[in-house]
Formats: sequence, structure tokens, C-alpha cells
Amino acid sequence: MDGPIPEIDRNTGRPLGMQLVEGVRRRILEGVLRPGDAVPSTRALASELAVSRSAVVAAYEQLAGEGYLDMRQGAPTRVAALLLAGSPPTDGLDGGRHDESVTPNGRELRVPAAATRTSRPLDGMTARVTADGSAAQSAGAPPRIDLLPGRPSTARIDTRAWRAAWRHAAGLDIPSESPPPFGVARLRAEIADHLRLARGVARAPDDVVVTAGTAEALALVASALAELIGTAPEVAVEHPGYPSARRTLERRGARTTPVPVDGDGIDVDALRRMPRPPHAVMVTPSHQYPLGGRLPVAARLELLDWARAAGAVVIEDDYDSEFRHLGPPLPALASLDDERVVLVGSFSKVLTPWLRLGYLVLPADPALREAVAAIRADEPSPVPGTAQEAAAALLASGAVRRHIAVTRREYAHRRRLVLAALDGLPGAPLSGLDGGLHAVLGLPDAATAASVVDRLAAEGVAVASLAEYSAVPGDERAGLVFGYAGPTDTLLAEGLERIRAAVASAI
Amino acid sequence: MDGPIPEIDRNTGRPLGMQLVEGVRRRILEGVLRPGDAVPSTRALASELAVSRSAVVAAYEQLAGEGYLDMRQGAPTRVAALLLAGSPPTDGLDGGRHDESVTPNGRELRVPAAATRTSRPLDGMTARVTADGSAAQSAGAPPRIDLLPGRPSTARIDTRAWRAAWRHAAGLDIPSESPPPFGVARLRAEIADHLRLARGVARAPDDVVVTAGTAEALALVASALAELIGTAPEVAVEHPGYPSARRTLERRGARTTPVPVDGDGIDVDALRRMPRPPHAVMVTPSHQYPLGGRLPVAARLELLDWARAAGAVVIEDDYDSEFRHLGPPLPALASLDDERVVLVGSFSKVLTPWLRLGYLVLPADPALREAVAAIRADEPSPVPGTAQEAAAALLASGAVRRHIAVTRREYAHRRRLVLAALDGLPGAPLSGLDGGLHAVLGLPDAATAASVVDRLAAEGVAVASLAEYSAVPGDERAGLVFGYAGPTDTLLAEGLERIRAAVASAI
Repeated sequence: MDGPIPEIDRNTGRPLGMQLVEGVRRRILEGVLRPGDAVPSTRALASELAVSRSAVVAAYEQLAGEGYLDMRQGAPTRVAALLLAGSPPTDGLDGGRHDESVTPNGRELRVPAAATRTSRPLDGMTARVTADGSAAQSAGAPPRIDLLPGRPSTARIDTRAWRAAWRHAAGLDIPSESPPPFGVARLRAEIADHLRLARGVARAPDDVVVTAGTAEALALVASALAELIGTAPEVAVEHPGYPSARRTLERRGARTTPVPVDGDGIDVDALRRMPRPPHAVMVTPSHQYPLGGRLPVAARLELLDWARAAGAVVIEDDYDSEFRHLGPPLPALASLDDERVVLVGSFSKVLTPWLRLGYLVLPADPALREAVAAIRADEPSPVPGTAQEAAAALLASGAVRRHIAVTRREYAHRRRLVLAALDGLPGAPLSGLDGGLHAVLGLPDAATAASVVDRLAAEGVAVASLAEYSAVPGDERAGLVFGYAGPTDTLLAEGLERIRAAVASAI
Repeated sequence: MDGPIPEIDRNTGRPLGMQLVEGVRRRILEGVLRPGDAVPSTRALASELAVSRSAVVAAYEQLAGEGYLDMRQGAPTRVAALLLAGSPPTDGLDGGRHDESVTPNGRELRVPAAATRTSRPLDGMTARVTADGSAAQSAGAPPRIDLLPGRPSTARIDTRAWRAAWRHAAGLDIPSESPPPFGVARLRAEIADHLRLARGVARAPDDVVVTAGTAEALALVASALAELIGTAPEVAVEHPGYPSARRTLERRGARTTPVPVDGDGIDVDALRRMPRPPHAVMVTPSHQYPLGGRLPVAARLELLDWARAAGAVVIEDDYDSEFRHLGPPLPALASLDDERVVLVGSFSKVLTPWLRLGYLVLPADPALREAVAAIRADEPSPVPGTAQEAAAALLASGAVRRHIAVTRREYAHRRRLVLAALDGLPGAPLSGLDGGLHAVLGLPDAATAASVVDRLAAEGVAVASLAEYSAVPGDERAGLVFGYAGPTDTLLAEGLERIRAAVASAI
């Protein structure tokens, strides 16, 4: 059998349903089945492969949930039209990826040897510490308009469901032990459901580990790698990227090596060119942080091919994946490979970072699972059992799903405000707006960027400087990174106008 | 001025009240003022030192809270009678400490060079991992009677207050940011109050950092030391001691060196003899884990003198300090020195480890505070804001204080059951029962201990082997470590009877 019909091998131990899903997905990703193509009817495929029709229906439903198929009542099921929107349709899978002109700093970034272990400055912070442990703001007073990236809108959280969930959790018996090492079973099942529905990652609850947000998940993975490898594991990280995440890995004994990023995400060729392959690579393919690119499907497949050949673990920080504004979801790396991808995510954007709730999804590799279990045996799960039960109840109530739908519309509206205010400013290209809750405004040089950030701070508008995300000292990009989800429409509009004015007068 | 009247120096910046407290405390600890001695009346002392009477009253009240003074309505205030119960009264401050015969393994413990970096086996665990991340029990079924140390009794938690606290917290506005780096202000204030009342540690809320239990607190301190020192900090740890805590430090880059412990706690002489003083020492002076000794006051002062001379940080794990069965509290190291002692504690025993709530108390050293703040800036507090608000409400309600009083009586009763069942067994000395929730039963040799642990496991009684706490491979002690707080009286009685029978038939 070839063409659009996937092969089924009854001699492997692999469940038929899983083989069906993988076969169809592979044919779509490889371009054998193309956007808009009708797939065989469930009846025809079941008959052709001699499997039950319900198995085919289940496989198609999973693929529809993952964004690969478009199922409509009374119409043939087709390959989703916009699936490969990350690449121009005419170029096929590889299109647009290797255009040198789209890369701000050039792809042949030279990485100074001294930069593999970065020094550890605070992100744009002074060394002074206030009583609650915050770094002191140089301006003294808190900003009037907080456009720092990373803050969601919590105004529309269903407070009735929120309270009911905590009330339920507080009414349960109080155990006299720590929560289970990988989390409360009910929450792990709800997170697995959430990942399947919101992210197209179909994995068993047993693969889910509950964590205290993304930072704790990354720390756990880094410690597990150190446990497995014995010496300091080498981890390739995006440049520019998330400096806190980098330092979190380093604090657990990892050595990080920067790999350049362009408008589409990490440069897989640069990974391939590394003289010695790292033990792991940490990527943000959904919405590169900070530049905002979405890693195209072809590059995802190349990245996984590289990882397989190099024997490397891929740490997928599924940053902002729930909020995409242009095009349908691209498949998570964890949905393309369950052998070596560790998916890391949180409810910090979906709900609020106040909840300190995240997760990691373990790959099939038993060694990594055992290393994580060994760490959790020494250092119990930091997530209170009551908070886990409350989160499970909240997810089960449907309130989280509804909240994502509501905030997705709200953030799309905010994004339009950003475009209306800042798109097309001369010398200040706006980018990173395909998804997520923040945008990047490029600026001509470091001095301009510093003066704009300072002027905005003096006016009570907090934004981040793109330079702070550099993983290579001396190779900073000039620009602003700002979030648009947290403030009210009115404050956002004022903040954007102040950004526009500050940029216009500085350039 | 000399004798019982403390000196006051108006030229230092130090507040007069603090000088008063320290002066009286020092005179008591040095034996100038002795148990039962009346101290000057507040009126007389105020007049003598030309300070306000209210300042003297406040100082006396603090010293009474710390257990140094005995204040009664209508009677002169006296030095508390049993303060120095850790040492026999006739021997004074130094008594009983250097009797070689009380030390099971001899004080001149030889530490093999290879042991400074221990390998990382799981504590008595197999490598197999169950679906929830627990290590698989070799017996398969969970134990019928769980006497593993570390489980408190939760049956008497005031569930009405517990639910009300969570309901209150869930009804608050939902912020769109992470909790403050050092914790919610209200909780920090409640923890400072708790430490003052339950532990005699009078420190400002600003010095308190909320953590996810003791393990996260230790991890934070270790990472802060690494941040400060730049390379792998050397930390002296108790041998035998808590293997998980040791590995938690090592996982954050510390190198640990074992220091022997006797029936009274860590051997300060052995610390002094270290060829190169470590950057820090981690101790459990309240109730040494696992041997159960209480570090006498003289040894506490010697330890602090050593730390000052060595420039070392003292990490005080205030393990089980709330539950003492013989004698009044000894002063926490953190109450004797606020320059270099980091106090670490949790509500895991006081309430339940299910809550994942702990704290550290920072010393005055600003560098350490800044290092902790830098880590919390990268890795936000893992403790959910709602859980912090709930814990603050629970503490404020008085339910925690009442629960400690109730469980203290309950555990004292359980302790009597342990003594009745196991004290005086030939060849199996019972120890560690001055405080806390666990006891140690010595056994003649490793083979006997292993056979007793195995037989008990086969009978469904889970206890720990003392050998697992060794920090020096090849230098394991033989015995059992078992908790007596978790099970019901009936199950505990049955478990103790099975221990007695297993030991009797093995020796």
C-alpha cells in the first residue's frame, strides 16, 4: 500500500489506532496528502485496512484535534487548509526558511568561546533588593502601565468556578504525606486531556508530571539530565532567548551554548554545525521567546531528525501555544516524537502565574523517567496537594477551556490595537504577532533602544529591552519587547501611544 | 557595670532593646545568671540603665518567649529553671558533652577521601518507578502499618478552620502575576509570629522567605551560596544525617563533607579539625535527624564561635523543634546569631507535608539576601499565591497554634507507648525520644538490622534502616528508625509489638 493510505503492521506491538494516526500525520507532513485534499472515508479506510470503523473514526478525531484534519458534518473530511501556514504554500515544506534576508543579524552568528558560560546578571535589574525580594525599580514607584511581557489578563476568569474548585479541594480529607511525586492522579488526567484538546498532544496521564510552573519543570529536567549524564550536561539554547530559563538550567549544573534564532525560530543548520552535539536543546517552537517566530513544520522535522542522529533530548517549551492569531496550530514537537521530546508548559498564561502550576510531559525513555522520579523522591513535589485538587476541579469544570476561548478573542482584539498603533513606523519594524501575548519592535541601535526604554520608564510605562535576551555578550539586538495582554484597553492604548511617540522622537 | 546587669552602648547603631535582650541572654548562657536566679525588676533595670521601663518590659517578654525567663504575675521574674536541660545541671554548660562512652561509633570517625562526593543511590529504593513516580515497594502492596519517619497525625486538624482559610483565599482577587519573590506579606508576618511564639526566634517578617517545604528552602540556600561563592560551595553535613537533604545540596552544585554526630548532635571539635573550613555547615540541632540528639547550649555557642571564625554560614534545619517531650526548648541557633545563621523549617510536621509549605529566615548578611532574590527573580516562588493566603488565614485563626498543642499531647502519649513496648530490650538500645516524632532502636550489626527490616516489611510494617542515613559509605550504623505519629494508637501498638518480636527473635 502506498499513497494516501497509511500502512498498518500487525506484527509490531504498536496499537493499530496509533499506527493509523501516525501514518496519516506523516503523509500530511510529508506532503503526500496536501491541504484541502479529501482523505478516504472512514468506511473505505476501515475496509481497506481491515480494521474497525470506530478505530478509524477515533484516529480522524484525534488528527482533527491536532489541527491536521478538518471534519465537518455531512462533508468529506479534508486535510486542514492552513496547517502549513508557517511556510508559503507555493514553496512546500521547505519554503521561506532559508532566505538569508529575513534574518536580522545574519545566520552565521559567531559565538565567542567565553560565552558558553554566561555571567549571571539580573535581567535589567539593579542589585538593590526590596523587602519582598523584588529587585528595586530604578524609578522607585511601580509603573503605571505595565507592558512587561508575561502577564495575562485575569479580569475574566470565572470566579464562581475558581472558588468552587478551591472549596471542593479544601473539603477533601487531609493526607499526612506529600502529594504523589508526579502529581495527583486526577490532575495528571485533566492535564493530559487539556494537552490533547488545546494542543493536539495525545499522551497518557502517566507521562504527565505536575510542576510549580515552567521554571520548576525546566529545573527538574536539567537536574534529571545531570543525574543521567553524570557530569554537566551541555544544553543548546536559543539566542536571543529567555535569560531566566538559561540561568535556571545553569543553576542545575548544565552548560549552555547559544544557537542563533531567526524570524522563524531556531536555526537547525547551526545546531547541525556544532562541532560536538549537545546533550539537549531547549526550544520555544510555538512562539519563539522573545522574537515571536513559529518554527515551520519542515524545520520541526529537521530538528527531530537532528536530535535522533545526535542522541539529544529536545526540551520543548510550548510557550504561548494556546494563543495563536494567524493560522492554525503547528504540531507540537512532542506530538511528532514521543521518544526524546520533553514538553514543558504552564497555566501561567492560560490562567495566571499566581497559580504556579505547570507540567512536563515525559518521553518514552525510561531512564529520564527514573531520573525525574529519583529527584522527586528526594525533593517532594512543590505543588500543594490542595492546589492540585483545585486545579483538577477547575479543569474538569470546563472553566479553563472557556477562559482560553474568551481570552483568545480578547487578545486578538488587543493585538489589533498594537498593529493599529505601531505597524509601519519608519525604522521600527513590528514583529512577533502571529501568536502569544507580546510583540517586538525593532530599533536601529542600542543607544536608541536604551533612550526609548528610559523615556518610557520615566513616563511610567514598563517595557523590556530586546538586548536583555541576548545569550551572547556583545551580540545584543536593539528593540523593545512588550506584552499587551495584562492592562485594560484604555491603559494599553495610552501605553502604545507613548511607545509610538517615544520611538518617533528617538529615531 | 558588670554582673547581672547588661551593658548598653549608646554609640553603636544597635537598638537599645536589642542590646538589652542580647545582654541578658548572654549572661544566662554564660552562667552569670543561673536557673532560678531572679533578674532585676523592670523598674530597677530601667532606672539603672536610664532607658524606658517599657523597653525593659518588652525585652523581658521576648526573653520569656524564647524560654530564658519565667515571668509570673505578682512574682519576681527569674531565669527559667530547666533552660539548660540538655546538660546535667551539676556539670554546668559543658557537662556530659565529652563523655566518649555515649558515642556509638567513636568520635574519631575516619572519613574516606572518596566519600566527600557520595554516589546517589535512592534511599533504600529499587530503581523501578511506578506510574505516579513513586519508587516501587519491593513488597508490592503498600504497608499496612506505615512507621516510616516523617508522617504527622492529621486526624485532628481543625477542618472547619482549614476550609474557612482556603475559602477566604479563593475569594480574593486573582492577580495576573507570580506571588512576590519572598512570599505574600501577610504570610511572612504570620510565619514571623509563629517563629516568635513557637520557637523563640524574634525576627522581622522581612527576613522570612516562604518556600515549598524544607527541601525547596535548602535548595534555595544552596543555589544562593553557589551564586555568592562562584564555584561549588563546600558544605559540612551531619553523619549520619538526612541523605535527601545532602543530595538536594549536591544537586545545586554544593560539595558535601560528612562530620560525625553523637548522641548530642554534631561534633563541633570535628568541624574545628577540618583542614579547610567549609563555606557552610548544615545542622539539625533541635532533634538531630536521625539519631535524635539535642545539641546542648554550650555546643551551640561553640558552633557559632567556630562559624564566626571560619566565616561559614550555618544552615539550621529546625527539624521537629515544635515537639519536645523532655525539657524546655533550647535556643535556636538563629536566635543566638542573626549574622550567619539561615533558619530552615516547614509546616510539614506541624500540619501536613500535603501543604508543601516551608520557610527560611535570612540572616542580616545582605549578600545572601541579594543572591536569594536573584534566584527568585529567575525562578518565581513555587508556592501558589492562593495557598499562601490560605496558610496566612489559617495561622491567623489560631488553628495552627491549637493544633500544635493538641498534637503535642497526642505525640507524648504515643511516645509513652513506644517506651512501654521497646525500652530495655537486650541488645537494642532505644534513643532519640527527647523530642520529635521518631525513635531509633540500635541493633548489634548490619545483618541483624537487615533481617529485622525485611521481616517487618513481610509483615506489612514499614520502618527505615539506620544504615540508609550514613553519609560515609562503609560506615553504616545498625538499627531501625521509625515514626510513631502517623498511625492510630491501635496500629501503632501492633507495629511496636511486631518490632519487639522481630528484634527479640533476631538477636
